[in-house]
Amino acid sequence: VGADSEAVLRELAAALAARGATASLLVDCDTGFGRTGVQSPEDAAGLAELAAALPGLRFGGLMTHPTLPGSGAWLRTARELIEARGLGVECVSGGGTPGARRTHESGVFTELRAGNYVFGDRLGITAGHVHEVDCALRVRSTVVSTPTSARAIIDAGSKTLAADRAADGSYGLIVEHPDAVIYDLSEEHGHVDVSRCDPPPALSEVVTIVPNHACATVNLHDTVALHRGTDEVRIARVAARGAVR
Amino acid sequence: VGADSEAVLRELAAALAARGATASLLVDCDTGFGRTGVQSPEDAAGLAELAAALPGLRFGGLMTHPTLPGSGAWLRTARELIEARGLGVECVSGGGTPGARRTHESGVFTELRAGNYVFGDRLGITAGHVHEVDCALRVRSTVVSTPTSARAIIDAGSKTLAADRAADGSYGLIVEHPDAVIYDLSEEHGHVDVSRCDPPPALSEVVTIVPNHACATVNLHDTVALHRGTDEVRIARVAARGAVR
Repeated sequence: VGADSEAVLRELAAALAARGATASLLVDCDTGFGRTGVQSPEDAAGLAELAAALPGLRFGGLMTHPTLPGSGAWLRTARELIEARGLGVECVSGGGTPGARRTHESGVFTELRAGNYVFGDRLGITAGHVHEVDCALRVRSTVVSTPTSARAIIDAGSKTLAADRAADGSYGLIVEHPDAVIYDLSEEHGHVDVSRCDPPPALSEVVTIVPNHACATVNLHDTVALHRGTDEVRIARVAARGAVR
Repeated sequence: VGADSEAVLRELAAALAARGATASLLVDCDTGFGRTGVQSPEDAAGLAELAAALPGLRFGGLMTHPTLPGSGAWLRTARELIEARGLGVECVSGGGTPGARRTHESGVFTELRAGNYVFGDRLGITAGHVHEVDCALRVRSTVVSTPTSARAIIDAGSKTLAADRAADGSYGLIVEHPDAVIYDLSEEHGHVDVSRCDPPPALSEVVTIVPNHACATVNLHDTVALHRGTDEVRIARVAARGAVR
């Protein structure tokens, strides 16, 4: 379990100890992303000592998300401060697919939490850490309207593709028409600028989309169809979606 | 059923006629929104005639989405053109909550399709067609981290709130802290700028959020808890979510 504050450590410890249980605690470190995490290696060392001292908790190590260029140095400093206090740092856990291939270079990480790499997505292509051919997640959608020569409407909107917009303004890559721009999403419709396509998508055509963000897209669907080549081999349930309570 | 092209009308008609069935067809009209719909009243009249002539279809009238200030005049012209061809226009259907209270003023509409009004949301507050007190949909979320004095992290991200961003850059209204800005969403975390809050949200505090977009938010959840006053009266299943195939 990860935590970044004394208050949460104490509540966790009390709850665990009351049940006669013990958990290994990773101190959550903000190494540059600006989300959760302690703000300095000194604060990480302070929480490590507290975790080691509290009943119900065992100090397990450090974690961060995502792994950024400066994350390794930050965590090495924290590890040294903690070791100087006589504690072992068993686990140093990094996160995120974008930095995954370079995480080992700093030599400090013992674990890598990467999820997006299972599928890959268009934001990953744009960021340069995956190629289109490696993107396993595809959304199939039908062109339901071609009201003008510049516009096609597909039956995939924000309930199908997720509303993560890329810097270039498109909500996904249409594989058969790479010059098409999905410039807006209604709930059930994708609005596609086809003015640069030659030929443009035809009415009733079924197109294949690499979504911008695989994680949020999968979360919208109850099932995914697994394929090997062109054969559908299994319908898999998306077990964890809707698990937010 | 609505359609905006000869090709779709012909395919619909053939499929229906092959099964000995008939459907009432509304011609989908683009009265300014720029999504689906025929581009001119003349085109609407042409499809109306085609629908009336094809087996399996009956011409039922006109539809548009959303209802905009110019929609009434556009549809009145189309209706006159169609009536001049000897066809009756039984239904003229308008859509959308933002224009719902003014849809009757044009005198042409016979039907209003409004969905968002059931809940109301923050984009509706911003647009001025609903007040915060009327917004029935609330997301309850816990402050899980307060890493700096300016930042709080809540356990509601893009899998809870949907990633529809408002023009002011916030992903929702925190009722107890209206000066807080949910400036970014990770999948499971909301990033909140609390620098203008006095007092700021406390660690472990449970906050109440009016989401930006009720439709997309409800679609992320399997159930909603219905309340009357402070009493929870029923857990309702979100029956239509995940119905995208």
